[in-house]
Amino acid sequence: MVQEKPLAVILAAGLGTRMGSGVCKPLVPLFNMPIVEHSIRALIARGFDILVIYHNPKVKEYLQQHFPKISFVKNPNPERENGYSLYIAKDHVKGNFLLLMSDHYYTENFFEEACKSYLQNIAFVSTFCHDPEEATKIKVQDDNVVSIGKDIKDYNFFDTGMFYCTQEVFKHAEKLVAEKDKIKLAEIFESVAREGKLRAKVINAKWIDIDTQEELKIAEEILKEQIVKNEDGIISRRINRKISLEISRHLIRYDFITPNKLTAVSTLLGFITALLFYHGHYFLAGLMAQFTSIFDGCDGEIARIKHQKSKLGSVLDSVSDRYADIAIYLGMALSLPPTLLRTFALFLACTGSIIFSYTWHLTRVRVKEGGRDMRLFLTTVGGLLASIHPSFITATMLSVGLLSHICALLALYRFYTKS
Amino acid sequence: MVQEKPLAVILAAGLGTRMGSGVCKPLVPLFNMPIVEHSIRALIARGFDILVIYHNPKVKEYLQQHFPKISFVKNPNPERENGYSLYIAKDHVKGNFLLLMSDHYYTENFFEEACKSYLQNIAFVSTFCHDPEEATKIKVQDDNVVSIGKDIKDYNFFDTGMFYCTQEVFKHAEKLVAEKDKIKLAEIFESVAREGKLRAKVINAKWIDIDTQEELKIAEEILKEQIVKNEDGIISRRINRKISLEISRHLIRYDFITPNKLTAVSTLLGFITALLFYHGHYFLAGLMAQFTSIFDGCDGEIARIKHQKSKLGSVLDSVSDRYADIAIYLGMALSLPPTLLRTFALFLACTGSIIFSYTWHLTRVRVKEGGRDMRLFLTTVGGLLASIHPSFITATMLSVGLLSHICALLALYRFYTKS
Repeated sequence: MVQEKPLAVILAAGLGTRMGSGVCKPLVPLFNMPIVEHSIRALIARGFDILVIYHNPKVKEYLQQHFPKISFVKNPNPERENGYSLYIAKDHVKGNFLLLMSDHYYTENFFEEACKSYLQNIAFVSTFCHDPEEATKIKVQDDNVVSIGKDIKDYNFFDTGMFYCTQEVFKHAEKLVAEKDKIKLAEIFESVAREGKLRAKVINAKWIDIDTQEELKIAEEILKEQIVKNEDGIISRRINRKISLEISRHLIRYDFITPNKLTAVSTLLGFITALLFYHGHYFLAGLMAQFTSIFDGCDGEIARIKHQKSKLGSVLDSVSDRYADIAIYLGMALSLPPTLLRTFALFLACTGSIIFSYTWHLTRVRVKEGGRDMRLFLTTVGGLLASIHPSFITATMLSVGLLSHICALLALYRFYTKS
Repeated sequence: MVQEKPLAVILAAGLGTRMGSGVCKPLVPLFNMPIVEHSIRALIARGFDILVIYHNPKVKEYLQQHFPKISFVKNPNPERENGYSLYIAKDHVKGNFLLLMSDHYYTENFFEEACKSYLQNIAFVSTFCHDPEEATKIKVQDDNVVSIGKDIKDYNFFDTGMFYCTQEVFKHAEKLVAEKDKIKLAEIFESVAREGKLRAKVINAKWIDIDTQEELKIAEEILKEQIVKNEDGIISRRINRKISLEISRHLIRYDFITPNKLTAVSTLLGFITALLFYHGHYFLAGLMAQFTSIFDGCDGEIARIKHQKSKLGSVLDSVSDRYADIAIYLGMALSLPPTLLRTFALFLACTGSIIFSYTWHLTRVRVKEGGRDMRLFLTTVGGLLASIHPSFITATMLSVGLLSHICALLALYRFYTKS
């Protein structure tokens, strides 16, 4: 049988007890999604077939329900430790494969660097570890692993729990299984390394082995860093993300909620804001503008956490945001009798908000102050003030328009000077 | 001496007389620019150093004035033919080099395919030729050239006048120069081929050897095909390009006229159109809109002919076009008292014209009917009609707005269905 897709083997048969939550470790929720599911989604997005070595039937039950294409092999003797779990995979794996732990969280960049095709056995190592005492250490010399183990004193890297393996690894596993009862994974790779057949590859991306509640919290912080975008403006970073992440945390458990559906809802919220402005409910409209701004973050957050990012999704999001924005300004303008100034203000706001985004897509230079979060924040403030006096409507459009045009031209200028 | 940049050797010492214009052949204008200059600009844009083998001092004089970094070697005996010209280059070339003729026109795609680094002698061959009788033919077997010459009967490709050469070629040239007086280039490569050391690479791009006035005309047609963009709409293709190419033909001779300066002028024309609308000179404004549309093509044409395309240039062009467009609609709207309908029409036209372009940049799906050429054509028609009755101003903005929004959404839909 020729393996057409790359294969990942996930060891999920551990008896881990330190979390103390009663849930078996791979299923412990990290941002409301089982730890192991984060890796599984990342691997599926990269085209991997997946084989899970499990012991607790709940693991199989949960994963089979959500990912029907995953294969499973039961380890009936988890007390023989994770080296034995790898041995169990032997008869179900042809060719090379990626090996990883079910209770580790790896970032997108980690998978990006590790998920390639290799010809040799590789230990993915890191200079960093959250719990050096409990960690497996690795001594690397000239790209070769010379020793690996929890208690070695002379080491320069940490084991990340991810390996690339050839069939050779099973020979070493087999030998150890015949010799002793409990086999640690590190012992198998120590045996491979002793023959000079284990290379090391340093990965410069975050990862964490989740053994305690505290590490679970650290993992969540790392995950959040991944989700928040670099180009987020100050309103987004300081206000919106805090709330949208909590919304996303709840939405993430529903398989039918896709990023594109969230984009549609977010657009609808924008049009509701527009209607509220048009009918003169300025106070409500202002509040709704801020809620639109907050909810606008959810589609991207869910897409990144669930590894469902797509070019189509990003295009739909961009264009529908623009339509929602200009609908809001039109609603503002048409809520009052037309004047030359108001017509000009509408012109400025509409063209500014699109040209800002247009310039950003063309130049990839971001002037954060003119982003959608700031424009909708100004719209909120304008709506609240307009409930006191309607002249704030024109003022809001003027300020949104000026701000976004200035920021667009500034982006263009920065692009020009760095070209 | 280590050659850091790739080198191209151009043979320009021919005595070619068939053109009959009195100008020496490499300097015969093709689209108002010497034939050889087209290749030189393409090579410089790809980072090549250039060595020209010339005989006529006018060739050196012209090129030195425009391209001070080119090196020159004089062939004192042009009657010994182009093989001797290649021999002349011997002491001035270390390492491998690209060899080409000064009186051939090669398209951008031809250079794209040919300009790589190779390790062997290569003849770039083509299945197509405009003048099979005069052409040098090549017999290729298993990627190897087995014979080359004007009079061979058994051939399957044509020589394109472009070769990639190692130093080995000079050994063969030297031998032939010692033996006889007139040496054709084909004889040198025939000698290389006889030792099995000349590979063939088929190039699927247009080229032409310019020997007659008729071939000069064909070359110009090929050149124009290169310049006109795929995404050109019907107005652009049928009307604007015919005029803008004539303008570009005149502008091309001035070194100080850069694409970015032309972008600035084109933007200025757009703003003049806007002012004419604003002051109610609708008839003039309409004419000016069409002229803006025509002149808008020149920056891109000059950039492509002179090989001066840049990301900066394309961004500046895109953004300034958008600003010119919305200025025109604002000029239209403010030329009359504001009404709800006119405010809405301004809104539609401004947002539509930017969102159309925004969607095109995001999706790379083009709905040609909504392009700038069509919008400015509608603006021209609207301006002419508005000089009869001003109500056509609002109608123009409405139709431009509707058209561009519909085309933007259509592009989005097509992108969606093909994703």
